[in-house]
Amino acid sequence: MMPGQGMDSRQAPAIVVIYHSGYGHTQRMAQAVAAGAGAELIAIDAEGNLPAGSWEMLAAADAIIMGSPTYMGSVSWQFKKFADASSRPWYTEAWKDKLFAGFTNSAAFNGDKLSTLNYLFTLAMQHGGIWVSQGILPSNSKAAQRNDANYLGAYSGAMAQSPADAGAGEMAPGDLETARSFGERVAGVASRFRR
Amino acid sequence: MMPGQGMDSRQAPAIVVIYHSGYGHTQRMAQAVAAGAGAELIAIDAEGNLPAGSWEMLAAADAIIMGSPTYMGSVSWQFKKFADASSRPWYTEAWKDKLFAGFTNSAAFNGDKLSTLNYLFTLAMQHGGIWVSQGILPSNSKAAQRNDANYLGAYSGAMAQSPADAGAGEMAPGDLETARSFGERVAGVASRFRR
Amino acid sequence: MMPGQGMDSRQAPAIVVIYHSGYGHTQRMAQAVAAGAGAELIAIDAEGNLPAGSWEMLAAADAIIMGSPTYMGSVSWQFKKFADASSRPWYTEAWKDKLFAGFTNSAAFNGDKLSTLNYLFTLAMQHGGIWVSQGILPSNSKAAQRNDANYLGAYSGAMAQSPADAGAGEMAPGDLETARSFGERVAGVASRFRR
Amino acid sequence: MMPGQGMDSRQAPAIVVIYHSGYGHTQRMAQAVAAGAGAELIAIDAEGNLPAGSWEMLAAADAIIMGSPTYMGSVSWQFKKFADASSRPWYTEAWKDKLFAGFTNSAAFNGDKLSTLNYLFTLAMQHGGIWVSQGILPSNSKAAQRNDANYLGAYSGAMAQSPADAGAGEMAPGDLETARSFGERVAGVASRFRR
Repeated sequence: MMPGQGMDSRQAPAIVVIYHSGYGHTQRMAQAVAAGAGAELIAIDAEGNLPAGSWEMLAAADAIIMGSPTYMGSVSWQFKKFADASSRPWYTEAWKDKLFAGFTNSAAFNGDKLSTLNYLFTLAMQHGGIWVSQGILPSNSKAAQRNDANYLGAYSGAMAQSPADAGAGEMAPGDLETARSFGERVAGVASRFRR
Repeated sequence: MMPGQGMDSRQAPAIVVIYHSGYGHTQRMAQAVAAGAGAELIAIDAEGNLPAGSWEMLAAADAIIMGSPTYMGSVSWQFKKFADASSRPWYTEAWKDKLFAGFTNSAAFNGDKLSTLNYLFTLAMQHGGIWVSQGILPSNSKAAQRNDANYLGAYSGAMAQSPADAGAGEMAPGDLETARSFGERVAGVASRFRR
Repeated sequence: MMPGQGMDSRQAPAIVVIYHSGYGHTQRMAQAVAAGAGAELIAIDAEGNLPAGSWEMLAAADAIIMGSPTYMGSVSWQFKKFADASSRPWYTEAWKDKLFAGFTNSAAFNGDKLSTLNYLFTLAMQHGGIWVSQGILPSNSKAAQRNDANYLGAYSGAMAQSPADAGAGEMAPGDLETARSFGERVAGVASRFRR
Repeated sequence: MMPGQGMDSRQAPAIVVIYHSGYGHTQRMAQAVAAGAGAELIAIDAEGNLPAGSWEMLAAADAIIMGSPTYMGSVSWQFKKFADASSRPWYTEAWKDKLFAGFTNSAAFNGDKLSTLNYLFTLAMQHGGIWVSQGILPSNSKAAQRNDANYLGAYSGAMAQSPADAGAGEMAPGDLETARSFGERVAGVASRFRR
């Protein structure tokens, strides 16, 4: 805090986006969320490990936004390896009362994406966290267009849909804008919380 | 069984489709499933009650296929009233080892439809049942068309998506054909099961 | 706000506990949560209806804590009737950014109570809400006693377990104290949140 | 099939129990399930890999019973690595119409075990499988004893609860007997299916 600032002046909340991406789609989504949230990014690698300094960043975060592709009905094993490793901060309740949120990408419109978001929620609950919804009503009338905000109709977190044979460069712009807007929302909620 | 029939000769399995529909979409889906399955239909009414004789039909069924719109993230309260009333056969394990399956319709592509199917699964599990998946791989490549079989990418049961301002007459033909095909699959599984 | 109060002075958050109870157990739990939270209580009746003034109380609430017995694997139909009726504030996003939390009671230790809490979470997400975890680590060592805080090992909300043949008066004191403590926690989180 | 056997004579169904165990509890549970089912065991190792020949055993199985500890709210990452690797048989629908079932152990009575079973179910659904419930009513009256069959109150699969500081040798005998009985049930269901 700068000297002379009043009680209500506060730094921007520290937000971390931690994600695993197999083929680059979830990475683009993570970048969009982070751009909206003003967040730092942590990429889980192909062996489920984190870069040096990641656990310290997570410990210092006001909000942790988690992302994973949906593989075989839930987060990738690499993401789950991170989740299992988080049993250490769990044990000391180090992440209690942090804000959490989540996002996922998969090839089909439904494709059990909700199962992935539900898992991310369950993980956040085990840590004693507070979970932020997506907060954008679905675009689901006859006039709805593929690139409308929340065209997929997600609630618990942000979703993207990318055909199985589409590269990361071919993601729907609307899904990425939804992700960016979701990041912005999480930052807004975080700024309303007193530390 | 007719006299003289061999041990492998058997009647077609008795299949019941029980559903609630608020605006007619889930009803059309139920009719499609029933057509595919060769099933009898039971409609839960607007007060959550069943027609006379329904509990007897359910007791005699080899397979029970359950359908509901997704309202506020799960089955309608009318469907849930039926589910709660099924505590009577639950208590006597009267539905144990029956086959079960489920389907749902809602306005958005995702729209928490999986939450509804997961609930129908949970209900079937409480009854000691055996749950049949949808069994159709999703159509999720760049070339996918809206009326392809399983365009939505469901696994645990059949899903349909109908815009919020679209009448039951405007449902996607592909979703209805997916429902019909799903009914056919459940009947096929039922016929493989020895009573 | 009283004139002359600083920006940080604020009233206690308005918290509502809304619940359905079939046999009185969930009611006792609701009373314990409300005592801890300093909350007003709304009882959903046997037909799934609310007392006059309830929707106004809900509209004015900073936090809505929802409770239901677990019947046949999810909330009771009476609770679901309330949930379905909440499609009206959903449509206008009237409950967006409220805090939400949940609790449930059933006869078995596990008994699919998580399915009920997951549904309450899904409902809160549809409303664009923010979900508060239980925040008490489980008591799960060999020395654990039945009346320890969070003996059941819940995370997403508060759980109680009451044998099928035990009246509401026979509930485990530890489960009720866990519920009270959970209410206190939700109030604490609510007081940290700027309106 | 032996020469001279009739059409209804058939070999016992081929059943495989595949599991990961971190500290030996889930392994004991797996052994109990396998004893009840007359199944072969596949242990996923500490790096999430399978012994040679495992994929062939899985391909030949009539029923696949899956087990994992509940770590941080779902299956262990090692189990998930196996699940992700099963995208190969998924792609060719090689496991379609197999029977599936699941079990889990964790330290708390609830402890989000249902989240693990729900994930195993979701995985089975992606494979186009048929899911077998536990099929034992819970022991949940005031007279219930810790070692009763299904004392925990599970439905979707078998559950065991072992305190955080209890070794595998200290598991509740009733949980292991429940697991054995569950394996027997899956074998019984499998024998009723025509190949």
